[in-house]
Amino acid sequence: MKKILILGAGLSSSSLIKYLLDHSNQYDWKIRVGDMSLDMAKRKVNNHENSEAIEFDVLNEEQRIEEIKNADVVISMLPARFHLLVAEKCVEFEKHMITASYVSPEVKSLDEEAKAKGLLLLNEIGVDPGIDHMSAMKVIDEIKAKGGELVSFKSSTGGLIAPEYDNNPWNYKFTWNPRNVVIAGQSVAQYIDHGKYKYVPYQQLFRRIEKVSVLDLGEFEMYPNRDSLSYRETYGLENIPTLLRGTLRRPGFSEAWNIFVQLGATDDTFQVENTEKLTYREFINMFLPYDEQDTVEQKLCNYLSIDMDSKIMSRLKWLGIFEENKIGMPNATPAQILQKLLEEKWALGPEDKDMIAMQHQFDYKLNGKAKRITSSLVVIGKDQVHTAMSITVGIPVAIATKLFLTSVINQKGVIVPTMKDVYEPVLKELEEYGILFVEEESELD
Amino acid sequence: MKKILILGAGLSSSSLIKYLLDHSNQYDWKIRVGDMSLDMAKRKVNNHENSEAIEFDVLNEEQRIEEIKNADVVISMLPARFHLLVAEKCVEFEKHMITASYVSPEVKSLDEEAKAKGLLLLNEIGVDPGIDHMSAMKVIDEIKAKGGELVSFKSSTGGLIAPEYDNNPWNYKFTWNPRNVVIAGQSVAQYIDHGKYKYVPYQQLFRRIEKVSVLDLGEFEMYPNRDSLSYRETYGLENIPTLLRGTLRRPGFSEAWNIFVQLGATDDTFQVENTEKLTYREFINMFLPYDEQDTVEQKLCNYLSIDMDSKIMSRLKWLGIFEENKIGMPNATPAQILQKLLEEKWALGPEDKDMIAMQHQFDYKLNGKAKRITSSLVVIGKDQVHTAMSITVGIPVAIATKLFLTSVINQKGVIVPTMKDVYEPVLKELEEYGILFVEEESELD
Repeated sequence: MKKILILGAGLSSSSLIKYLLDHSNQYDWKIRVGDMSLDMAKRKVNNHENSEAIEFDVLNEEQRIEEIKNADVVISMLPARFHLLVAEKCVEFEKHMITASYVSPEVKSLDEEAKAKGLLLLNEIGVDPGIDHMSAMKVIDEIKAKGGELVSFKSSTGGLIAPEYDNNPWNYKFTWNPRNVVIAGQSVAQYIDHGKYKYVPYQQLFRRIEKVSVLDLGEFEMYPNRDSLSYRETYGLENIPTLLRGTLRRPGFSEAWNIFVQLGATDDTFQVENTEKLTYREFINMFLPYDEQDTVEQKLCNYLSIDMDSKIMSRLKWLGIFEENKIGMPNATPAQILQKLLEEKWALGPEDKDMIAMQHQFDYKLNGKAKRITSSLVVIGKDQVHTAMSITVGIPVAIATKLFLTSVINQKGVIVPTMKDVYEPVLKELEEYGILFVEEESELD
Repeated sequence: MKKILILGAGLSSSSLIKYLLDHSNQYDWKIRVGDMSLDMAKRKVNNHENSEAIEFDVLNEEQRIEEIKNADVVISMLPARFHLLVAEKCVEFEKHMITASYVSPEVKSLDEEAKAKGLLLLNEIGVDPGIDHMSAMKVIDEIKAKGGELVSFKSSTGGLIAPEYDNNPWNYKFTWNPRNVVIAGQSVAQYIDHGKYKYVPYQQLFRRIEKVSVLDLGEFEMYPNRDSLSYRETYGLENIPTLLRGTLRRPGFSEAWNIFVQLGATDDTFQVENTEKLTYREFINMFLPYDEQDTVEQKLCNYLSIDMDSKIMSRLKWLGIFEENKIGMPNATPAQILQKLLEEKWALGPEDKDMIAMQHQFDYKLNGKAKRITSSLVVIGKDQVHTAMSITVGIPVAIATKLFLTSVINQKGVIVPTMKDVYEPVLKELEEYGILFVEEESELD
């Protein structure tokens, strides 16, 4: 019998826990799920015979040690800042660990000790990071294997609303942490293009979009993610001339969002005065120069050179930013005020389903010819619990856990899933869950 | 005999030290000047009979205590972050202290103890803050005294090149800390206009300019300073509908500087890759999208919608940002790279003189009439040591020190010079040094 400890029972753990419980009799697993909320943990395991739900506080060191000591593998789905606390104890008490989050330098520094003790600390095996790594490395390795030379790699992912439920002028709803969407991009984006480093500051980010077309879903636009440069090392592409990673939105989203960026309405560094008394209209007016005669709408259009009857304005009006409704929130930053409004307007309805879209575009040269492989993924959520986000984050973690416990994955140390013997079996099983990349190849010119 | 300890012998101490030495026989003062550089301290006191120069390290607690213990008044011209170290020991050992810097909350918290011990800790008595406070309060108090109601107060200051030496297309040279000029404005500017709070993010700051005309110097433009709102409390103007403080530049400066802001070239938060190998042209190209055909100049013009033959472009070209010269600086941030270039181009020549320009504009109502008082100051530097900046920072500090030691100023506690019994005698003596405000009054329709 193997004991699996899952820390964190939030939305992203739903599909993970279900998978492991569904396979627990077959593999003789005992699944222990800990969360700050015992109720949440209980709901997720749903009285399954091989499960236990406990109240768990990662900051309680005694409990943390006790629980980790009693497990064989620890899966941390906690907020990223807590992983180090878990990882240190896993290494100390010689337990394996799996997470869907980015490896911090501190966790990375445990590599040597983990290897010496024969431990696996597998990270970045959710969707982004995770499925992106695995699906990209599969194609990169294939191109290299046939002697191709990669000249460009562009990759983008979006958490969006499924087309059937896409019924607002922004073509967007919150399917994940709203705060991260509101403050996205506030540090410089870095990438490389034709051998030249490119830096995009926040004030230009939502103007620097590229068009992306994904299967039969139609057009998207992609804005650059913070750090594309580090992927050169992660993917073994140190000399690639072009590497760009981005975030997908539906066309028109970025130019409208850019209005908030330009106004300063996404600023999270200071509190606005008297926010409890303000209306959203007054909030927008705070960012516009005083004028004796013009309306807030006219001032906004003049200030940012947009037309009153433009699509940008219709998107803004639909959000209600010009209405006299009270914000009703004390001591808020602009970003918090904007988030409050957006959470009302961009909320998922009870029947809505979300969607994950991902696309890699590889340009390479082979035998003097320029070729392109496009690899695309679309996952639609099942319901409000097993959302596309929950499935694509949790199922790879679950599969990797199974493959490790069944000795299909035999890596040791602090790793991410870029090795063939990790990504190949995981990607293969992901197909059974509808997480399937469609590859298209074409010749350029 | 009174012992005056001056900490810091940099540029801003030159005129201060000279004033105190010039008056030292008359008032029986002993002036002790400490600096990290003994040589700098020695040069500033120039073997004056009433002076001593010492090597001083504020972080050496033993020395700090020893020196403060032996003084009657301590003048701190150290970088602002060190004032608290000095202030704490002044209060502990019952010494008075005078500085030209902003009062930090930590220094402010010493107020009660200072008062109980009968000590003066006078701050913000340089130029800005300092002369601005005193000259503004004089007019504010006069308007209040005659029963006027202030409806608008706008105030702006600039450290600039004197007109006779103003010979580049930016009409600007560095007369003070270049780094502060390059990174100026990177947190939101806040002011109030017709009773409405206004917030200006960095990406709009250099577009939100107002025209200002100062005496016979002609036109300037002013962009908003970080925090105008706090001046309501400082000046007792809690209910004023309009209050805006700003920085003066010559017309056209802001729209050209805005290009660097929009590109991201003033960013100080990350290091650019391989800066030791880059040219300035490549530096600018880093912020522009890749294009197969267009030159860097063409891309810049397209990207930011400016004309190739515009004044903006001629200012940019004059700086040499499109030239193939090596930056020659490892691991630099964009702001550091830009600063290096500007320090070459905007350097003061050996004969150049600087200029301080300041203007307050008060709109008020009296007996049903709308009136305006404009109060303007222009100070031209004497030479490269006694610059306008050094004079306007140092002379008020020196005068206040004299007035305190001769019991003309009798305030106690942690204060700034907004009280009439402080600003009146200081302003009066400043006139002897050519620091003289010209007041103009007019009726508004």
